[in-house]
Amino acid sequence: MDESTSSDRLLLDDLNVGQRFTSATHAIDEARIKAFAVQFDPQPFHTDEKAAERTLFNGLAASGWHTAAITMRLNVESGPPLVGGVVGAGAELSWPAPTRPGDVLHVESEVVEITPSRSRPDRGTIVLLSRTMNQRGEVVQILKATLVVPRRGTS
Amino acid sequence: MDESTSSDRLLLDDLNVGQRFTSATHAIDEARIKAFAVQFDPQPFHTDEKAAERTLFNGLAASGWHTAAITMRLNVESGPPLVGGVVGAGAELSWPAPTRPGDVLHVESEVVEITPSRSRPDRGTIVLLSRTMNQRGEVVQILKATLVVPRRGTS
Repeated sequence: MDESTSSDRLLLDDLNVGQRFTSATHAIDEARIKAFAVQFDPQPFHTDEKAAERTLFNGLAASGWHTAAITMRLNVESGPPLVGGVVGAGAELSWPAPTRPGDVLHVESEVVEITPSRSRPDRGTIVLLSRTMNQRGEVVQILKATLVVPRRGTS
Repeated sequence: MDESTSSDRLLLDDLNVGQRFTSATHAIDEARIKAFAVQFDPQPFHTDEKAAERTLFNGLAASGWHTAAITMRLNVESGPPLVGGVVGAGAELSWPAPTRPGDVLHVESEVVEITPSRSRPDRGTIVLLSRTMNQRGEVVQILKATLVVPRRGTS
């Protein structure tokens, strides 16, 4: 856990249910939406404006996995400063609205559960609820991530 | 839904609980693991072999979001051939084992729920359980995705 253990980073013991974090912002454009989609989600509503108009999305939209990846970037760089980093064991995701070209996203996160490990006294898990919002305040993704977080030694 | 509505693609009505699909394979290497991580999950266990050895991962591992993105690619290109494509409303994810450089992944999927929409007779949702496996048969990701699937017209 090396360089991330500096004292300004948080251990499980430092967290409280209800604690909130707001990330920096990230702008997404048409070129990035298409580049991600070509690599990982090559479907017309993510790669072609014209074709996208005739789909459920009514226009070009980012892959949900692109929104998820951007959310991760924002949480790693400007979300909760956890000792050991942002280490996910699992996640629940939904995408209530599409991410569009020109959107500027940020993430509002809240600690909703804290569970010390029964078998490993040096760690525990938290559930972090992260809402990814666009510049109009619309929620484009809701993520409940279970993260592994180190605990202070019980010496 | 244009070009995806060709008759060899499946509507909600064509699916059965228990139906299975096996994808093609996708090889992942160190360069791709690092490139994804630099862009979306810049943490030492995803970007630096040496630093990764001293973390929970015991060596370089792909971002879980990279595994998720590869899974999407495999499901889009060689998973269930759904009319309208693979359109996710939400998902539950876990990563029981890390994806490592040199891994060759494939996805085994099963339809576990089929739910016609009450309000929209032209569509419904399915829950697709997708296990992403490496070349040793280890499960690196379990995904339960809720997908929107068109129905045959009720004329």
